[in-house]
Amino acid sequence: MFSRTVLGALRPQAAKLPQAPLARRHISVYGYTQAKALIYSKYGEPKDVLRLHKHSISAPHATQVNLRMLAAPMNPADVNQIQGVYPSKPPFQSALGNAEPAAVGGNEGAFEVLSTGAGVKNLSKGDWVIMKQTGQGTWRTHAQLDESQLIKIENKDGLTPLQVGTISVNPVTAYRMMRDFCEWDWMRAGEEWMIQNGANSGVGRAAIQFGREWGIKTLNIVRQRKTPEETEALKKELKDLGATVVITEEEMMTGNFRDMVHEYTRQGREPIRLALNCVGGKNATALAKTLAPDSHMVTYGAMSKQPVALPSGLLIFKNLSFDGFWVSKWGDKNPALKENTIKDVLQLTRAGKFHDIPVDNVEWNWNTEGPALSESVQGTLGGYRSGKGVFTFTGGDE
Amino acid sequence: MFSRTVLGALRPQAAKLPQAPLARRHISVYGYTQAKALIYSKYGEPKDVLRLHKHSISAPHATQVNLRMLAAPMNPADVNQIQGVYPSKPPFQSALGNAEPAAVGGNEGAFEVLSTGAGVKNLSKGDWVIMKQTGQGTWRTHAQLDESQLIKIENKDGLTPLQVGTISVNPVTAYRMMRDFCEWDWMRAGEEWMIQNGANSGVGRAAIQFGREWGIKTLNIVRQRKTPEETEALKKELKDLGATVVITEEEMMTGNFRDMVHEYTRQGREPIRLALNCVGGKNATALAKTLAPDSHMVTYGAMSKQPVALPSGLLIFKNLSFDGFWVSKWGDKNPALKENTIKDVLQLTRAGKFHDIPVDNVEWNWNTEGPALSESVQGTLGGYRSGKGVFTFTGGDE
Repeated sequence: MFSRTVLGALRPQAAKLPQAPLARRHISVYGYTQAKALIYSKYGEPKDVLRLHKHSISAPHATQVNLRMLAAPMNPADVNQIQGVYPSKPPFQSALGNAEPAAVGGNEGAFEVLSTGAGVKNLSKGDWVIMKQTGQGTWRTHAQLDESQLIKIENKDGLTPLQVGTISVNPVTAYRMMRDFCEWDWMRAGEEWMIQNGANSGVGRAAIQFGREWGIKTLNIVRQRKTPEETEALKKELKDLGATVVITEEEMMTGNFRDMVHEYTRQGREPIRLALNCVGGKNATALAKTLAPDSHMVTYGAMSKQPVALPSGLLIFKNLSFDGFWVSKWGDKNPALKENTIKDVLQLTRAGKFHDIPVDNVEWNWNTEGPALSESVQGTLGGYRSGKGVFTFTGGDE
Repeated sequence: MFSRTVLGALRPQAAKLPQAPLARRHISVYGYTQAKALIYSKYGEPKDVLRLHKHSISAPHATQVNLRMLAAPMNPADVNQIQGVYPSKPPFQSALGNAEPAAVGGNEGAFEVLSTGAGVKNLSKGDWVIMKQTGQGTWRTHAQLDESQLIKIENKDGLTPLQVGTISVNPVTAYRMMRDFCEWDWMRAGEEWMIQNGANSGVGRAAIQFGREWGIKTLNIVRQRKTPEETEALKKELKDLGATVVITEEEMMTGNFRDMVHEYTRQGREPIRLALNCVGGKNATALAKTLAPDSHMVTYGAMSKQPVALPSGLLIFKNLSFDGFWVSKWGDKNPALKENTIKDVLQLTRAGKFHDIPVDNVEWNWNTEGPALSESVQGTLGGYRSGKGVFTFTGGDE
């Protein structure tokens, strides 16, 4: 892989081509694919440190695969990574011909195979793939990766790029937290509960739908919206997905939350056995207090930036367990299980049982300027976004 | 079982006996054993609600066993139970002929068999026993229990009543917390660590000694004593038990604790894989921060009365797990394992590898007055007691 400058130096004939078309749209030149990537060379706010870097990708050799991005979301963790406050830090490299070593932003996305090296066995042009691991950089029009780093999406015809591009972080997080920390009594389907905060997040919505499919009732906490109408609309939206109960954080913090829970759970006959926490602070403590003895709380986020405060009695006398879940690390340790989890969720998706998250689509074409893309990333942590920000690349099919 | 009053009414001849000797010392009358128990009929401070109740115990029938107390400790949880703030609450009963229903205080102790019913199979006069379950009441000169509720102490000759009477709560708690929450790499004996606060407690001292025996290094936190000399004496005492490092809470809370830990653990090459917490609050958070990824903190007490505050990053990115341990509930669920654990610790004791805790001995003879006993119980939560308060009954051998 070479930068345009190096490319020009190595292959003088390339420099003789007319420059205008090259700059205005994506084309292949002498087997090289023109590409752009959102990269950062230092940590900071996305709007300050992200820049659009143009480079070219050689024809794939051996087991290499050339890819075109279809859809790549902006997750909060992606922003934390750019800010330098996320423990997983992709190394800064110069592999894209960039003068200053840099990393490509983004951790998940759907890609289409454009071409394959002679040694590639299970992928061919037109296939859809996702990256096996996070940290590879997905905010880019094109990429060249080894076949071993890719998961092929089978039966893609029943799926959309958005569904495939947002499957490997949020739905996998919800799925594994619900399956790996709590031994549900499957004979009691419909009589056991899960409670979660941040219920309208990508993870929350996935958990609601798995609960509906698996017979686990869900008690869902969301933040109050700006108007009562918006709050009611959100509650209805989550109920339509399969939520058993949806209440606001404000309702949870009132004195009679205990009575409300008692009623939902048929006077405690239906135990709440799992709590999923992405908020922390008092919200998390309130969740923990609803749990039946011997239950689990799993923390996967900390939106309130407050620590989880655990009254010792809950630990000692109720025998509650508190764990965390980090999908990146889990996926690296359990690649086969991750792939199976993804397949299972995609199967639910094809069957119409797993619905798309609300999306704030950010179209990325060959002429999109860097600052527009960076601003979109910056908005990810803003709070009340209408949906998850997702880049969709609309060019580069040739 | 009857109270003295009921006894007199039922058996008029008993009432004819001279009263003075009966009141002054313990004797058996017509097969009835005279007994006293520290009981409470309502929750409150021990000095206010405990009273010494005199009653008599019939000759044992069938599988019943009559017992004499040898030694019974005062644990902090015993006081919490009397205060009504402990989740395990023995029922108030009138089984000891008491007019007002009451419970007997105390949860562990060593007893000697005085006599056995005809159906008793594995116990005989002179044997030492402990109670299988907590909540039976051990602060009493005598007791009558069914054989099935007792654990026989084998090879008692190498043991003292104190050792037997204090085995089932603190040492079992330390033992199970160290074995059941962390998969030690036994091939790395001497290269893995445990950290604990309240290290000079009964549990703490037990943990230090198990660590020494099992090749687990221990980093021990104690509260600073009143004088530097006393602090140094305590550090030496714990080191003599086998503690690898002993520091004060104050030393832990200074800025360079991180560096100190780094040095102790050979620049982090020796992971701290388990934390035992009986304090809570900032102390617990400091402990958690020293842990290696994928490690565990187990909480068994809350001396600071502050909740355990968990920075979410420790849960999510370091994959730490936080659990609680309650020996009473654990023992009820795992009676066979509890018995084996006790046997193992007693074996270490006989071998001279498990040392007595410091004791504040409270002699209880037939003439000891109730208020003196209640005051001793009251002092249990006082803080800097010289040793664990233990009742030893010095009468009633006949």
